[in-house]
Amino acid sequence: MAGKNQEFVTHIADINVDFPQWYTDVILKAEMVDYGPVKGTMVIGPYGYEIWELIQEELNDRIKATGHRNAYFPLFIPESFLKKEAEHVEGFAPEVAYVTKAGGEVLAEPLVVRPTSETIICSMYSKWIQSYRDLPMLINQWCNVVRWEKSTRPFLRTSEFLWQEGHTVHETAEQAQEETLKMLEVYREFSENVLAIPMSTGRKTDKEKFAGAVATYSIEALMQDGKALQAGTSHNLGQHFTKVFDITFQSREGRQEYGWQTSWGVTTRLIGALVMVHGDQRGLVLPPKIAPIEIVILPIAAHKPGVTDVCLKVRDELKAADIRVYLDDRDTVSAGWKFNEWELKGVPMRLEIGPRDIENGVATALRRDTLEKFTLPLEGIAAASQAKLDEIQRALYEKAMRYRDAHTFDATNFDELVKGLDESRGYVRAMWCGDRACEDAVKERTSATARCMPFKQETIADTCVCCGKPAKHLVFWAKAY
Amino acid sequence: MAGKNQEFVTHIADINVDFPQWYTDVILKAEMVDYGPVKGTMVIGPYGYEIWELIQEELNDRIKATGHRNAYFPLFIPESFLKKEAEHVEGFAPEVAYVTKAGGEVLAEPLVVRPTSETIICSMYSKWIQSYRDLPMLINQWCNVVRWEKSTRPFLRTSEFLWQEGHTVHETAEQAQEETLKMLEVYREFSENVLAIPMSTGRKTDKEKFAGAVATYSIEALMQDGKALQAGTSHNLGQHFTKVFDITFQSREGRQEYGWQTSWGVTTRLIGALVMVHGDQRGLVLPPKIAPIEIVILPIAAHKPGVTDVCLKVRDELKAADIRVYLDDRDTVSAGWKFNEWELKGVPMRLEIGPRDIENGVATALRRDTLEKFTLPLEGIAAASQAKLDEIQRALYEKAMRYRDAHTFDATNFDELVKGLDESRGYVRAMWCGDRACEDAVKERTSATARCMPFKQETIADTCVCCGKPAKHLVFWAKAY
Repeated sequence: MAGKNQEFVTHIADINVDFPQWYTDVILKAEMVDYGPVKGTMVIGPYGYEIWELIQEELNDRIKATGHRNAYFPLFIPESFLKKEAEHVEGFAPEVAYVTKAGGEVLAEPLVVRPTSETIICSMYSKWIQSYRDLPMLINQWCNVVRWEKSTRPFLRTSEFLWQEGHTVHETAEQAQEETLKMLEVYREFSENVLAIPMSTGRKTDKEKFAGAVATYSIEALMQDGKALQAGTSHNLGQHFTKVFDITFQSREGRQEYGWQTSWGVTTRLIGALVMVHGDQRGLVLPPKIAPIEIVILPIAAHKPGVTDVCLKVRDELKAADIRVYLDDRDTVSAGWKFNEWELKGVPMRLEIGPRDIENGVATALRRDTLEKFTLPLEGIAAASQAKLDEIQRALYEKAMRYRDAHTFDATNFDELVKGLDESRGYVRAMWCGDRACEDAVKERTSATARCMPFKQETIADTCVCCGKPAKHLVFWAKAY
Repeated sequence: MAGKNQEFVTHIADINVDFPQWYTDVILKAEMVDYGPVKGTMVIGPYGYEIWELIQEELNDRIKATGHRNAYFPLFIPESFLKKEAEHVEGFAPEVAYVTKAGGEVLAEPLVVRPTSETIICSMYSKWIQSYRDLPMLINQWCNVVRWEKSTRPFLRTSEFLWQEGHTVHETAEQAQEETLKMLEVYREFSENVLAIPMSTGRKTDKEKFAGAVATYSIEALMQDGKALQAGTSHNLGQHFTKVFDITFQSREGRQEYGWQTSWGVTTRLIGALVMVHGDQRGLVLPPKIAPIEIVILPIAAHKPGVTDVCLKVRDELKAADIRVYLDDRDTVSAGWKFNEWELKGVPMRLEIGPRDIENGVATALRRDTLEKFTLPLEGIAAASQAKLDEIQRALYEKAMRYRDAHTFDATNFDELVKGLDESRGYVRAMWCGDRACEDAVKERTSATARCMPFKQETIADTCVCCGKPAKHLVFWAKAY
């Protein structure tokens, strides 16, 4: 989108020296995003938005396959709604944007621009839900939300972002808990199989949970700078909101009961995770399943007889095999410039086709993840390409998994915890007594937070890593975005 | 979504007596929409949103096929941006919602919640566009917008609505004009072939054009109460915005020039048009191409041997043929109740399958549009069903076309115009001198407005229908939503 620069690749900061600057360079230069005119806002450029569209498509399939339907609720929430649930207002009020004037008048009640939609959706559910026959209520929405953050970074934390938020109501506590974990599992499966990002899953501590939830569960990913990123959350809301919004139903036994609720969401932050998990010094590295362009074809010496024809034929074969392919036949930039551009943009594989390739009945291929060069026979190139793309998809996941394993350490006392966080650049697994004081102490000394209490609980020590009292939970600690 | 009511169909107002109430009854009872807690806002329920998703899918295909890419620009626009283009601010300022507080602080500059995104997109384009090589810039976005309207009605006019807005910049005035008309044609083709709504297309008068445009073109549809509805617009913005936002590029001749711009959009209003063009006393009538459920299967005497099996088999066959099918196997409501519900929801065709049908090797079918009953052989039912759906799609378009033709009258003097508008309940075609005064006079006397100056200009009289001076344009006049 920005004016073209022949040397842009040389301007990417060193990934090992200045990771934050590397991130910013990559997302801007790959034309995924730009800064909006209002502080803290972002413009998602076509290349970033195409990734979001693929995320939406894949997630929508999964959200619908689990019985949910999409709907749309209003952007503006009466301020009084937000105030109904005590923890919720405390958690969100500091970040809220208010509409106070509209249609030429000062509003009698200020309106909150939704930071999340529990309250407004509950106000509708209290109307819609009458009987157990109306349950489970399984609704999802894709929309924008606003949280006025002090310190922002494109995709990771912005004043406005895009997300999906599921909101469900059930007859029993058990069903709500089942839904909460089911949707977390949908996120994990999607993240691992589509984004190729291994996820640690577990429950949040009370300190880290959603404002108004009984329990929050999350998927956590490890970035290449060793910081963790919360990539999605699923909340068991219990009856916190159904009681204050009076969401009652006639049960199978004929009693009036409050519904049991969940909510769950993932955001455009996932795009940031993709960049920071897979990227390298040349820029983005996209897993094929989420790449707007899976294969780029570059004609070499396109003026020579046959080159354009073969390129077009290969493009059509790949397209027919449902591979997202782009034939870059521009004659205004050099081949070297194209190499740089498509590597920066993380296209999983490129095929060069020139007179000599055609003579040999092959295309010269380059894998973006390994930068390995090889040839593919033109005969049957669609199937061979798909096999390579599948291989790249797997390889990226395994590489990220190896990184995570190599950056996860166990600590049995506070010194080891501090040392682990400083040196390992990643997760430290350590036991915790369950007291907020210890959690606060860890944060104060190390700036790390409890990312989650993993589902697979093990006992790696008997005592809390902080206070030495009997341990209750295994916790993944890390510095985090 | 609301609590189920066995007699809901009897509560729909008479379409011929109280069309506005009929409309409200249908959209609420079909669970397409509900009123939001803030005055003038709507909640789009799953059934309404599924229609919107189909609209998005069909339009996205067309928008991308014409070379546009989707992106996302921020919701909040600095107030100063809106003020840059004089006509634009005049047109939109009265309807704008302002954010004045955020993150616990009063903002130095109030933010406008986007009523449309020309200004914020221009601020980005002025950064992104440097050279003719960056043109044409062809970007579209799907988002919510806010216009604080005094008088609202779900889908037709609401404080917040969903839409797509395309924003393009070109090298020459001719290219911008070509784009403007190309996208109007995309809208027309989509509306006629997918929504089955015949459209009148043409240019808006200066009075009716977009605030800041050189020329606005629209597609106009006629509702069953004889009122017209502007269903989509495409604007040639000339250099109005590129000059005030300094969008310049180096031309092929090496000169610095201002770009030529267009914008175009359709909204959730299209859903309201669908209801009002095709609906009848029993509720919605959806064209198959836009129906969330194209065929509903109702088992009759489902407990009898074989019924469920055959229903499942038919469902699977229809699904395999890419027909959106739903098997309604609820045993909690009667068959009659199901008939009412699916008719209300406008499902294009229903198939009843009971023991006798199976014995005869058929399903008993009902077409929603004509309420005609017939049988379809179970053998090859997918192909036969698809053929029927295609027939329904065509029939709906033709019926709407006949309605429009029967409600279009020519007037050569003011009395005929007034009489035509009163009696015809539809369009009156009449000549106009081009003066604003005459346009105002027609509105004052009849409350009708100039819907468009159709592309197919004819001379049905030599003089203006209002003032008697020489006529310049043929105009479609109508009362409108």
